[in-house]
Amino acid sequence: MAVSVLRLGHRIYRDQRITTHVFLTARALGVKEGFYTGQRDTSMEESIGHICKDFGGSFKITYLENWKSFLQKWKSGGGRIAHLTVYGLPFKKTPKRRDRLMVVVGGEKVPPEIYQMADWNVAVGSQPHSEVAALGLFLYEQNGRKLPEKFVKARLRVVPQERGKKVLEKAP
Amino acid sequence: MAVSVLRLGHRIYRDQRITTHVFLTARALGVKEGFYTGQRDTSMEESIGHICKDFGGSFKITYLENWKSFLQKWKSGGGRIAHLTVYGLPFKKTPKRRDRLMVVVGGEKVPPEIYQMADWNVAVGSQPHSEVAALGLFLYEQNGRKLPEKFVKARLRVVPQERGKKVLEKAP
Repeated sequence: MAVSVLRLGHRIYRDQRITTHVFLTARALGVKEGFYTGQRDTSMEESIGHICKDFGGSFKITYLENWKSFLQKWKSGGGRIAHLTVYGLPFKKTPKRRDRLMVVVGGEKVPPEIYQMADWNVAVGSQPHSEVAALGLFLYEQNGRKLPEKFVKARLRVVPQERGKKVLEKAP
Repeated sequence: MAVSVLRLGHRIYRDQRITTHVFLTARALGVKEGFYTGQRDTSMEESIGHICKDFGGSFKITYLENWKSFLQKWKSGGGRIAHLTVYGLPFKKTPKRRDRLMVVVGGEKVPPEIYQMADWNVAVGSQPHSEVAALGLFLYEQNGRKLPEKFVKARLRVVPQERGKKVLEKAP
């Protein structure tokens, strides 16, 4: 699935954990590329990088200086944009796209142009919500309600257990 | 649906936004009661309280001094426990319960007894994840993939729009 996620307006102190959760959710739901704008946060990038190294897969994050020119280029190359917002239309009505879909997750202040640039303004319930949970539910429906099972080149692998913890480590 | 959520080990500075997201997700997915342990955080309680007042519904939060005696009482009264953990069994296999289910969301350090007290240790994918997104996906499946539409006594109501924002305010 070539779905990407763009997190807007990251602030180092206030948003570090939320943005980390946004990217962990994206990765766990099979997204391959994450982008973010706002303040560059190498510590957040590194913590996601460590997880990807340990648990595999090909997820990577890119910092963007300019979201507007990036999204304009994305659209002119045939990409589509789904913008998650409480004000949008019900998420189950968004067409399923497995290719070139950018899911935009807002921050504290969302630039009004996003509502116009988006192909779909999408609400996961019309209630105040967590953008992390909203992203998870949106991607889950887009994926046909499946979670990816294979993450290539993993060093660590969690083996599901009824009780307790089991993690297999690959010999180096 | 009488499903409740217990957030363990809240820390005021580090966890404020994540715990807020946990409870917003719980409320948006139809949970009526939230509980938490760790540090008492009246500011977090108030911010959830304001949202409930504006957007309606009957969600409320209770702080617990002692999670263990609380959960023992819960179980002896016929309640069941689902503990969200990356180490658990796939979430779609958890029996659907619409009554007396406590969903436990861990914090930084999860007491090992939880794995024993839980009726189900539940993983939403065996990958590092956001507990916020994991909670959202678990509740979504438990609800038969529906979001509640009615929140009683709402002062504000978001009306879904293709673009832009529309919020109706009830006359006082």
